[in-house]
Amino acid sequence: MKYPKGAKPGGQNAAGIRRRKDKEVRYGSRGMTLEKDLDFANSFYLEHGRAVIHKKPTPVQIVNVDYPSRNKAKISEAYFKVPSTSDYNGLYKGKYIDFEAKETRNETRFPFINIHEHQVQHMHQCYMHGGIVFIIIKFSLYDETYLLPFEKFLPYWERFLNDGRKSIRYTDIKEDSLSLKTGINPRIDYLAAVDEFYFENGE
Amino acid sequence: MKYPKGAKPGGQNAAGIRRRKDKEVRYGSRGMTLEKDLDFANSFYLEHGRAVIHKKPTPVQIVNVDYPSRNKAKISEAYFKVPSTSDYNGLYKGKYIDFEAKETRNETRFPFINIHEHQVQHMHQCYMHGGIVFIIIKFSLYDETYLLPFEKFLPYWERFLNDGRKSIRYTDIKEDSLSLKTGINPRIDYLAAVDEFYFENGE
Repeated sequence: MKYPKGAKPGGQNAAGIRRRKDKEVRYGSRGMTLEKDLDFANSFYLEHGRAVIHKKPTPVQIVNVDYPSRNKAKISEAYFKVPSTSDYNGLYKGKYIDFEAKETRNETRFPFINIHEHQVQHMHQCYMHGGIVFIIIKFSLYDETYLLPFEKFLPYWERFLNDGRKSIRYTDIKEDSLSLKTGINPRIDYLAAVDEFYFENGE
Repeated sequence: MKYPKGAKPGGQNAAGIRRRKDKEVRYGSRGMTLEKDLDFANSFYLEHGRAVIHKKPTPVQIVNVDYPSRNKAKISEAYFKVPSTSDYNGLYKGKYIDFEAKETRNETRFPFINIHEHQVQHMHQCYMHGGIVFIIIKFSLYDETYLLPFEKFLPYWERFLNDGRKSIRYTDIKEDSLSLKTGINPRIDYLAAVDEFYFENGE
């Protein structure tokens, strides 16, 4: 195996690698992505009959399909499409639930990069029709995850449309969101926060 | 332009094509697929603020992505995945709605081909959690479309699991379903049938 100069594992001169490891430990990142945590939580909820919530497939524009054999279809040309809805939706306690999940490595703010206007419109429509709608935001350098109810997010989005401010400050997220505690099974139990915010009176 | 022998458009000898045309007229097929009709209905409902219902993207397993230029990603190898949920879901009158749509050219029965066990499990879970769940079935040779509530579909599915009977008779579909009238705007107004079956008392 070839290592870059001075980067042999366990070697005395592996400063580059060591530094990166230290950084990981310091910021508490476990190398688990938010998406995996949410997939895991959704499987857990489904198995335990608590909710039926799925991530939608990535929207893809299929241009060309080959049939190398009779029963096999191979997509040989396709492109990613801009999603027109949010990534997650489903059913919890008889209610429609809809959310988007975003991760940022930014330390001071949550930038609106990767949130498409179509997605926000979609969430707004769901909210207006009586759905439970929110955004899950992970600050990965802190390993902190927040659930921001759509009604709290909306003023920031409107400010962006009016004044062009493309982000929400970390401190504002902390103020307006529910903090998601990190557990074991599931690691991120976001429905606990949904209960707290949307079903206060134990409905 | 090259035409197959004896198939010139408008020609005296275009018997093959003529016959197909006659057949189309006789069975009343308009050449519109069910999926297009439902897409149209869903756009119509969304524009008029009546419901927020979307078709999910086709699930695809992406194996390889090329970057011919810096900002362009081309998927060069991918495969269709078996869907684990139904194709359509959303929100109507504050309720979670979930359905699958199938078209058949069969004249006497609706075969369970293309309905995956995972999808039925998913619909069952949604039903148990209080969602509005159904299957839209189109007999394309008759241009007739039916909405079969999940609770009416379930006994047929259980019969299939027990006795292996892989279809529902056309006459049974007629008996257990709501017939979807064909209109203009939208062509298939399936929410009218949802109102009739699920919101009888004008809720």
